[in-house]
Amino acid sequence: MNSIDALIALLSKLPGIGKKSAGRLAYHILESDRSYAQLLAGQLAALHDIIKHCSLCGSWTESDPCPICADSTRDASLICVVERSQDVRVIEDSKEFRGRFHVLGGLIAPLEGINPDDLTIGRLIHRISRENIHEVILALNPTVEGDTTSLYIQKMLEESPITLTRLASGLPVGGDLEYADRLTLSRSFRGRIRMER
Amino acid sequence: MNSIDALIALLSKLPGIGKKSAGRLAYHILESDRSYAQLLAGQLAALHDIIKHCSLCGSWTESDPCPICADSTRDASLICVVERSQDVRVIEDSKEFRGRFHVLGGLIAPLEGINPDDLTIGRLIHRISRENIHEVILALNPTVEGDTTSLYIQKMLEESPITLTRLASGLPVGGDLEYADRLTLSRSFRGRIRMER
Repeated sequence: MNSIDALIALLSKLPGIGKKSAGRLAYHILESDRSYAQLLAGQLAALHDIIKHCSLCGSWTESDPCPICADSTRDASLICVVERSQDVRVIEDSKEFRGRFHVLGGLIAPLEGINPDDLTIGRLIHRISRENIHEVILALNPTVEGDTTSLYIQKMLEESPITLTRLASGLPVGGDLEYADRLTLSRSFRGRIRMER
Repeated sequence: MNSIDALIALLSKLPGIGKKSAGRLAYHILESDRSYAQLLAGQLAALHDIIKHCSLCGSWTESDPCPICADSTRDASLICVVERSQDVRVIEDSKEFRGRFHVLGGLIAPLEGINPDDLTIGRLIHRISRENIHEVILALNPTVEGDTTSLYIQKMLEESPITLTRLASGLPVGGDLEYADRLTLSRSFRGRIRMER
């Protein structure tokens, strides 16, 4: 196998990149300035040495604790529970939340062999018992796995005095009623909001 | 800028990869085995040192001349002219052509500042005059730039005794007449083929 084929084979292992796209990317890199390939290679080679899990919230970070956990201006009584580190970025971009995070590292999915013990749920319970937490917001995907995980955490915190909430589920902003699926529609009915007059 | 952001910025420079996709790729790489990132980094770092242009046909290759030009079982009297090195791969995959190639390195596009002198057209004419070529097949994209380039090469070879052909243009196999654009339809009419009875 020659170098281009080897590169294409590696690139096509990335999510959403088929063999054709991988070929296009490889040739693009080849035809770009070599400094681009060198920069990209350098970032990739160093990535796993530089980026670690935050020992508090579990999200990817260069410094431990991560900038969010280390930020004393954030509300330490609020924890937002997410599936993956990427979700932290999405929520941070929305600028909607000023508390701290907890990254589960996945969702409960027995069929795929992912059990509660494979996630950081134990550490979440531990954090809640030790830190001075008032509210835990579950920001998990509105899927079967997300709902299962939310219910499991709800059960684990049955005895806890904290407030447990989950993100509203319903029609996406800018979406079209006509294209909403039955479940989303049903959730947006059950979660309907009273309009003050 | 931290390492993940730097990687995302680099990845989002690739064609067809937006900022969101780049983020997904970066996190996927981070969550994959580190050996994958190392392998990919190695391929990228070495790419421009290993891959060169073939001094005969101009396509990307590890050895010079490239395996296709060096293959004495191929028909040396047949040259297929393509825009880019990737096109060689596509045509090779079709197993339809057993001659050699000539890579132009682009198409004539005056508005983008690409003139005949920026391409390897001169070298093509030189090859045709020196090698024992019977037929030159123009396999350029059926676009304005492709047609302009084909016409230019046709003009340059006016005096030459070789046979000059171009790929048939028409309805794609599996396509739907209803969705064919006017130009494609008009070309498939003009290029219609007599059915023997």
